[in-house]
Amino acid sequence: MTTFTDQARAALLASHSLALLTSAEKNRALLAMADALAERSADILEANGDDVERARGENMTSSLLDRLTLTGERIAAMAEGLRELAGLADPVGEIVRGWVTADDLHIEEVRTPIGVIGIIYEARPNVTADAAGICFKAGNAALLRGSSSAVSSNRAIVKALRHGLAAADLPAECVDAVALVEGDREVTTEMMQARGLVDLLIPRGGAGLIEAVVRGSQVPVIETGTGNCHLYVDAAADLDLASEIIINAKTSRPSVCNALETLLVDAAVAELYVPRIVQRLIDAGVTVHGDDASRRLDSRIVEARADEFDAEYLSLDLALSIVEGIDAAIAHIRRHSSGHSETIVTNDLAHARRFTSAVDAAAVLVNASSRFVDGGCFGFGAEIGISTQKLHARGPMGLREMTTTKYIVQGTGQIRI
Amino acid sequence: MTTFTDQARAALLASHSLALLTSAEKNRALLAMADALAERSADILEANGDDVERARGENMTSSLLDRLTLTGERIAAMAEGLRELAGLADPVGEIVRGWVTADDLHIEEVRTPIGVIGIIYEARPNVTADAAGICFKAGNAALLRGSSSAVSSNRAIVKALRHGLAAADLPAECVDAVALVEGDREVTTEMMQARGLVDLLIPRGGAGLIEAVVRGSQVPVIETGTGNCHLYVDAAADLDLASEIIINAKTSRPSVCNALETLLVDAAVAELYVPRIVQRLIDAGVTVHGDDASRRLDSRIVEARADEFDAEYLSLDLALSIVEGIDAAIAHIRRHSSGHSETIVTNDLAHARRFTSAVDAAAVLVNASSRFVDGGCFGFGAEIGISTQKLHARGPMGLREMTTTKYIVQGTGQIRI
Repeated sequence: MTTFTDQARAALLASHSLALLTSAEKNRALLAMADALAERSADILEANGDDVERARGENMTSSLLDRLTLTGERIAAMAEGLRELAGLADPVGEIVRGWVTADDLHIEEVRTPIGVIGIIYEARPNVTADAAGICFKAGNAALLRGSSSAVSSNRAIVKALRHGLAAADLPAECVDAVALVEGDREVTTEMMQARGLVDLLIPRGGAGLIEAVVRGSQVPVIETGTGNCHLYVDAAADLDLASEIIINAKTSRPSVCNALETLLVDAAVAELYVPRIVQRLIDAGVTVHGDDASRRLDSRIVEARADEFDAEYLSLDLALSIVEGIDAAIAHIRRHSSGHSETIVTNDLAHARRFTSAVDAAAVLVNASSRFVDGGCFGFGAEIGISTQKLHARGPMGLREMTTTKYIVQGTGQIRI
Repeated sequence: MTTFTDQARAALLASHSLALLTSAEKNRALLAMADALAERSADILEANGDDVERARGENMTSSLLDRLTLTGERIAAMAEGLRELAGLADPVGEIVRGWVTADDLHIEEVRTPIGVIGIIYEARPNVTADAAGICFKAGNAALLRGSSSAVSSNRAIVKALRHGLAAADLPAECVDAVALVEGDREVTTEMMQARGLVDLLIPRGGAGLIEAVVRGSQVPVIETGTGNCHLYVDAAADLDLASEIIINAKTSRPSVCNALETLLVDAAVAELYVPRIVQRLIDAGVTVHGDDASRRLDSRIVEARADEFDAEYLSLDLALSIVEGIDAAIAHIRRHSSGHSETIVTNDLAHARRFTSAVDAAAVLVNASSRFVDGGCFGFGAEIGISTQKLHARGPMGLREMTTTKYIVQGTGQIRI
């Protein structure tokens, strides 16, 4: 039986070869993986059918069931994602900076793969191909720990990806660059303790999963995540523009992390603006939960418990608070923000600058919808998640964030006196 | 009594103000801190005397005692270090990159402080001023957890630094940007669990301390570190140049992490070269520990146990192994490296390139002594340690590595369709 340690050692060996592949070789392999997914579409669908049937038997909710279910179209989209990765610039080898020291050493800081990356994720089987592809393009081996509910689908997808790798005329060990980690909960613990074999863990899923990995892991973790996103309507805002942004940020896709969760309105314009925006929100199907000050302005606002300002609704609900100017808005955000995306709507240049300087989040927006905070809209071409932590990577993570750097120091016999 | 949580909350508040200070304000404060150290030199020496006396009573080794002992000169050097920091470029506010998206959003990735940084370190009290200064210049608050053996010295130094901060005409809360964390072992555990209050922990000290923090912390940690550094003498090396580099890398300061620990010699030149370099090493007071192949070439080589290839000697000892060419050298390094600094001596361009590509370490050197791998020689002007991990920071860490970034997104009312 293949143990996790066997898989991790094989991934480590594969990562050594991957680091030396040319971009052309990696791109050819990505196309071969895409072809293999397409060719094995029927097998993958059949395996997925088993997962879906089992999930139905276990009364999985319809939204989770939808995320679990693959179709021919969804598999084609996974393959297309791999083809797009082949078209993106390779981050490996980029010279981040370079200089000559006082001792005439020529130093270059060069982007290199991280090595072996573990991904721990929940039901969606398309993550299997996406994550494997992004890791691979950046020269990393991927150990994929999917959920047990998608295990048949994930097996079929990984089998196809490895088939593609084997067909791509790479050194034989490269096939181990993609591996599915199976087993009970203990194997997740093993992953989290695999210092020296696994360089990085990325949990992708709900807050509970992320919290468990962050707390339990001895391997470095990048938190992806929760977005308790605020929008502050300044007294100097174009109120019509504010309304368009609010409706878009709240309602265009309420279940995602860059959706708006709390609206802050400057007291100076609240009397005028709150009834207007509440009407727009109600028309869009949103329930507005407000503090006392806001409820005095509009009786359609339901009472917000204090803890509602700290959590994501991820639904057509919005918290509302009236604040006494920009500094109170910044203070509210400091207290409640999850550090994802925070927005000000204003035409006052000094206020915009104060907000963008003082608010500490992965993204701070002026006069735009927070829904734009993702790798696709940012132009990264691929995204493995949005980091809400401050180390290594912050905000949308693309290929660049799946690399590290090393210093290459070229001398002519220098010794240190 | 001030609890750790009180201190951490105060540091968090201070960090909010620090992030908004101008470079001029921060530099003025660094000079005021330097002045305060100089003015209070007598108090600091007296406090240090207490620590030294207590350490003598507890039979501290003479090398540790030397590290603990302050002199007027050492305090002046601490003050000078702060003055030099005032002269360095401020990393905060640097626009790392910027672009305009397809939706006409103007995006800038801007360097910002990390927030609150905890430093856990061993006996040397000069780390107190160095670490506080580097954190401060990059806009971060520092929670300093020194060793109990230096507690009186550290108290006096932190008192002086806070006095300087108070005299620098900053917002009052900025004085809490530097704080000494005191108490028993439980307070270290509190620091390691302080998610949401502490953004980053940096352990500075021996391998045991670092390992304990990495394993125990739920706050992100940057490992600084151990350096099991190799040098490979290629068949195409200039052997005289190799000898100069080896002697320098091994003997100029054997106790530091960038000192040479293992010498690898290509079998093609071993018969010629091993007796020559062994003679040079013995003349320099070095004991050479070798594998069987090397001992057949020179009887003065003592037997190396297998585990000697995995550890740092940090003394005038050197491990030696004969390898069958460059790929065997790379394989040996992969197996035993701690990922710090690895060197090839060669005049063969293809070998140099193969080595720098395939060896995965913070620094890879060609024809130069690994003793150059530090922040000072790299021209960073200040260094808080050398990271041997791959996330966030790798290699010598200066001011830039004490920052994160955020995306500032400027729009004109864009919504996502």
